[in-house]
Order: sequence, then structure tokens, then C-alpha cells
Amino acid sequence: MIVDTQYARFESIALDCGATLAPVEVAYQTYGALNAARSNAILILHAFSGDAHAAGLSREEGKPGWWDNMIGPGKGFDTDKYFMICANVLGGCRGTTGPSSVNPATGAPYAMAFPVITISDMVRLQKMLIDHLGIKRLLAVTGGSMGAMQALEWAVAYPESVVSSIPIAGTARHSAQQIAFNEVGRQAIMADPDWNEGNYYGIKPPARGLAVARMVGHITFMSDESMREKFGRRLRDKDKVGFDFSVDFEVESYLRYRGSKFVDRFDANSYFFITKAMDYFDLTNGTGSLVNALRDVKSRFLVISFTSDWLYPSYQSLEVVNALRALNKDVAYCELPSNYGHDAFLVDVGEQTEVVRGFLASTFKANT
Amino acid sequence: MIVDTQYARFESIALDCGATLAPVEVAYQTYGALNAARSNAILILHAFSGDAHAAGLSREEGKPGWWDNMIGPGKGFDTDKYFMICANVLGGCRGTTGPSSVNPATGAPYAMAFPVITISDMVRLQKMLIDHLGIKRLLAVTGGSMGAMQALEWAVAYPESVVSSIPIAGTARHSAQQIAFNEVGRQAIMADPDWNEGNYYGIKPPARGLAVARMVGHITFMSDESMREKFGRRLRDKDKVGFDFSVDFEVESYLRYRGSKFVDRFDANSYFFITKAMDYFDLTNGTGSLVNALRDVKSRFLVISFTSDWLYPSYQSLEVVNALRALNKDVAYCELPSNYGHDAFLVDVGEQTEVVRGFLASTFKANT
Repeated sequence: MIVDTQYARFESIALDCGATLAPVEVAYQTYGALNAARSNAILILHAFSGDAHAAGLSREEGKPGWWDNMIGPGKGFDTDKYFMICANVLGGCRGTTGPSSVNPATGAPYAMAFPVITISDMVRLQKMLIDHLGIKRLLAVTGGSMGAMQALEWAVAYPESVVSSIPIAGTARHSAQQIAFNEVGRQAIMADPDWNEGNYYGIKPPARGLAVARMVGHITFMSDESMREKFGRRLRDKDKVGFDFSVDFEVESYLRYRGSKFVDRFDANSYFFITKAMDYFDLTNGTGSLVNALRDVKSRFLVISFTSDWLYPSYQSLEVVNALRALNKDVAYCELPSNYGHDAFLVDVGEQTEVVRGFLASTFKANT
Repeated sequence: MIVDTQYARFESIALDCGATLAPVEVAYQTYGALNAARSNAILILHAFSGDAHAAGLSREEGKPGWWDNMIGPGKGFDTDKYFMICANVLGGCRGTTGPSSVNPATGAPYAMAFPVITISDMVRLQKMLIDHLGIKRLLAVTGGSMGAMQALEWAVAYPESVVSSIPIAGTARHSAQQIAFNEVGRQAIMADPDWNEGNYYGIKPPARGLAVARMVGHITFMSDESMREKFGRRLRDKDKVGFDFSVDFEVESYLRYRGSKFVDRFDANSYFFITKAMDYFDLTNGTGSLVNALRDVKSRFLVISFTSDWLYPSYQSLEVVNALRALNKDVAYCELPSNYGHDAFLVDVGEQTEVVRGFLASTFKANT
């Protein structure tokens, strides 16, 4: 299944910070077919560094999408039954307007003059896309990590438009530790002189800082156990004699590789704007509690977390589940066993597939 | 109690890598008095970024030592009873020969031409110091984190010289995750152009890279819970309106502060050599198993870990304990409850004090 990225362009979007962004473009992909009743649409929400290419093979590179193991004929999100949409988030660098986009007022990239964005701004732009596609209600909104934040925000911001929400490995707000890990990434980028206050477009990107930021990220995505299983203390070069400062351990070469690959596909300024949006996100915002924040939601919920995920630990999912239960909302919670840490929602999808398939089938049946 | 740092100078030391370092100097401090039988000496082994100033107030700055809450009259390591010694490790930057020391062959700092060192080299130099002080047997060797590695290595390398070993919050070898966190720190330093392949002495140290490396460290030293208790999601400036990229959360300003303070007291090249020594360390080295490695130890052991320490989790201490038990060695194990994460051995010393005091008293009694 070769897929093309499509684009929708809107005159403007009003942001939480008070600024208006004009124009604004959204890159998105779709899989499967919208039914006549327009009742089978599911919006996939990507994580921090994801993009619109969630499934199928990209036309340009032939690469599978980031959730290709979950989306397709007969898969958890069955494209024989459902119409799937995935859009690059506002502030991103994979086709949707972000800091690397040209500011029409100056003819140069926005860079750090891009307005500060929030998770709620991302969701507002997605709502414009859904309206543009002629869809009134989404059968489901779902995603892992930052995608889970958006899935929660959708249910709160547009209760009439969401039949069900499936936040996976997420949270209603970042803890101090999560903010701290993001801050280290930002500091690593700012420490790179090539960052140049964000003005590196057409010159030289802050590749070293961005690579270091990504290395930190990769440690937090894996569990202690999955790292041990994957690398242990294996040496890269078994015949190496003595000690020096080249790469010794396989885990070191893995991190360096992932760090350097990331530089090819991600924009450092997007790293700033998107991680800040995650850190600012607080579903309780202004309401005083999760119970107050979730009082008016109308969707069903399937909340999923993973046992070995220490970046978004289960207790954060349970905070949402407990608030929904206190409100007598329709919520199912699954803590799935996995050794893969936070990466589990991307790589360990066996049980996740079963749980999602069943939940979607019952939701679809009850709503058609 | 004002304390002075003392220095011992040796002609040379032969290293595991095959090189000989000549001359070599050790910075150390002592607290309390050596008894006539020379049977009350305890060697304190510092963690990665520590130094010889473990207790009392430094003459220069009037600052308390890093384990001042554990060492002193009536404290866990009671200076009314015991003679305490603490030395800066080989490769360090606080008085003991390290990469910032002048290479007599060139008249310039060693920088990255410093020979690669190991935990066993550090311990060998400490043994030279102990011999120099006229002490045949140490009542105890003890330390947290990297200090625990040295405490284990001491018991294995010099079984006749160690009456007891107290490794705290440590491990017999780094996991892939621990290596990965160290590697990110090294990469952050190397990413800083001021690092200049290690040749920054007298010019400009790689302050930004070193600060980022330290920030990562500080996250791993604390637990999710202790970060929440200390910072939560509190904003630095409560009256701030809107979003921007200045410091928003208190945890961010804390990390930046700790990162920048570290630069004033630590040498980036020492960061390389010491973290590599930790990563290379494997107590089983060449023997095939911990049981084989520990077979000939003659000391008693008190192994301590902390419930919320996710950097050096309890299972790593238990691996050592289980091997010692399989050998029918004299070993006590305490997993102490604490919310402070890896920092617990430095800051949450109430129960640790009781456990250490009792263990030392019985060890001293049985050996005098």
C-alpha cells in the first residue's frame, strides 16, 4: 500500500498565546475508505517526533509508517472497516506549518519567532482538518505518548465530535521528571553554537546538540530490561585490545546511530516548540481537578499503559481512569505487560491489537 | 572542624592498560585519630564527582564535606572511635593526578593523552596511600555509587587488607542503561566545540556540554517522586503571562543551576576518564561469574540499597548479596526505604546511620 501525503490549507488559526498564524497548512494521510454515513473515521495522533505517515509505504522512500503494525487490513485499526486519518502536528517539521515554515511577513523561516503553541492548538487545527474532510464525529481519537495528550484534549475540547478516545502510554500532565528530561534536550540544542538562536536554516543545523537530545530520549523510551536484552554489556569489537575512547559497547553505537539519524528528519526548533507544548499541557487547566476537567466529556474511553514504561508510568494513566470512574463515565483500562518500556505502544502491539480491535468493534456497533 | 587536604606523592603507578603513570599524587583528608593498634581505619570511597573532602569544613571555602552527615563525632562513622580517610580518585580533578595534571614529559596537561584508567587502578593507588600511612588492614572500606564499586574491588583485590566492605547503592557492573546515561554525558561534552578534543586548558572549558551532561546526571540521581515533592509543576514566575522560552518550571531552573555550578568544580576530561572506568568495571572480569570473582574475599559485607533508586536499583545489590550468600560469606543486606532515589545515600541517612553504626561496632569488637 503506497500512500501519498495530502495537504490542507487554511486562512488562519487563532492560538492560545493570543497570536494568529496565517496561513496554516496541514500535512495528512488517510488509509481505508470513509463510509457513506461518515461514521467510521478514526484520527491517529502522533507522538513527539512522529509525522503524518502512520501506515503503508511512503511514495518517496518506500518506508513503512510509524504505526504500520497497528493500521491496515485486518490489523488493530482495520482499514477494511475504518477510515484512518493522521496529520502532522502544528509546530512540526513534516509538512504542517511549524518554525521551519516560511513566515509570509518576512519571506524567511519563522525560526524562534514562531508563536508558542499548545496541545490544544494542535487539536484545534486537527478539528479544522476534520471539518474540512466533512466529518462531524470521529469514531475514535487515539495515539501514544504526546498522541495520548491530544486524545484526551480532543475529548474535552470537542465532546460532541468524539465517540471514543484511546489514550495510550500518556498522561494528563507532565511530571517534574518528564519536564526535566525535555529540558535537558532543549539545553543540549541550545548548547550547540550551530543552533544560533534558531537561525540556522540554509546554514548548518545544530546537529550535535539535536543528536544528544535524541540520545537522552532513546534511553527514556526503553526499559532497563529491554536495554539489557538488546545490548547487555556486549562490546562492539570483541577483538579490541585495551581501553580507549572509541565506541566500546553496542549500546553506545546504537545511541550514536539513533542520534545522528534523527538529525536527518527532525528540525531543532520544532523540538523546542513541541516539547514546550507537552510540558505546558495540563488537562486540569483552570478547572482545579481532573474530575472537573473531564465532567462534560461524552466519549467512551479505552486507556492503555504498559508495565515497564517508566517515562509515562501507569500511575499517570490511572489518574485519568480514576477521575473518569468518579464521574461514572464509560472507561476501560488495560495495563499491558511488556518489557519494552515506553516504546511498547510502537513495538509490542500483540495484546494492544486485541484490546483496540474489541473496543472499536463495540463502539462502532453501538454507534451505527 | 576545619580540615586540610593532604597530599601523598609516589614515583609511579602501573595501570591496567599497560601504561605507567609517573609521578602520581593523591589528595586526601583524614578525620579522627588512628589508634595505637592501627585497627580503626576506615577508607571512604567517593562517587563519580566527589572528592577527598568528605567531612568537616574546608579551610578554603568553609564548606561541609559531601558526607558530613555520616562522618563526625557520634555520627554513623564516628570519628570519636574511628580514623577516617578519604582520597580523591585517580583520574579526578580535585588534587589527585588526572587529565588536568601536568604531564612531566611535555610540561602541559595530559588532557586526552592521560592513560585510560580503571576502578582497579583507583583502588591500587588507594592501597599505596594506605601503605604509606602505615595501615595494614582497614576496618572498613565504604562508599556509595562508584564508591561501592571500589569497595567491592578492594575486597576482591586485597582480601588480607579489608576487614569489612560496605558497598552502598552500587553494582558489580554497569547495565546497558547505566552505560547509556554515561555515554550521553560524554557525547554532550564532545558536542561542545570548546571541548576541542580535550585541549581546552588555559583557553575555555566546554562549559555548555559539561552542564548538559550534569543535568542528565541530576535527573537520574533523583526519583520521580522526590522530583514531584521538590518541584511538582510549580512555575518559576507565578505572574508570568503567556508562554515563551524563558525558564517556566522550577525544575528547569534547578537543573540549569546545578549544571552551571558543576562546571566550576569539575573537569570535562575527568568526566570522560572516570565514567569510562565505571562503564568498564566488571567485578566478574575474567572469572566468568560473581561467585567465582568473590570466592576468595575474606571481609564481612554490609550491602545497602534504596527502594526508589532507579539508577542503581536494588536488584544490582542483590546480585552481589546472592553470590556472597552462595559462598557462605558473612553478608548483611539492607534495602532501606527512601523516596530520594540514588541521592538517598547522601541525603536520607537516618536509617543508614543506624545500620552502619551497628555493623561497624560489631566488626570492630570482633577484630580487636
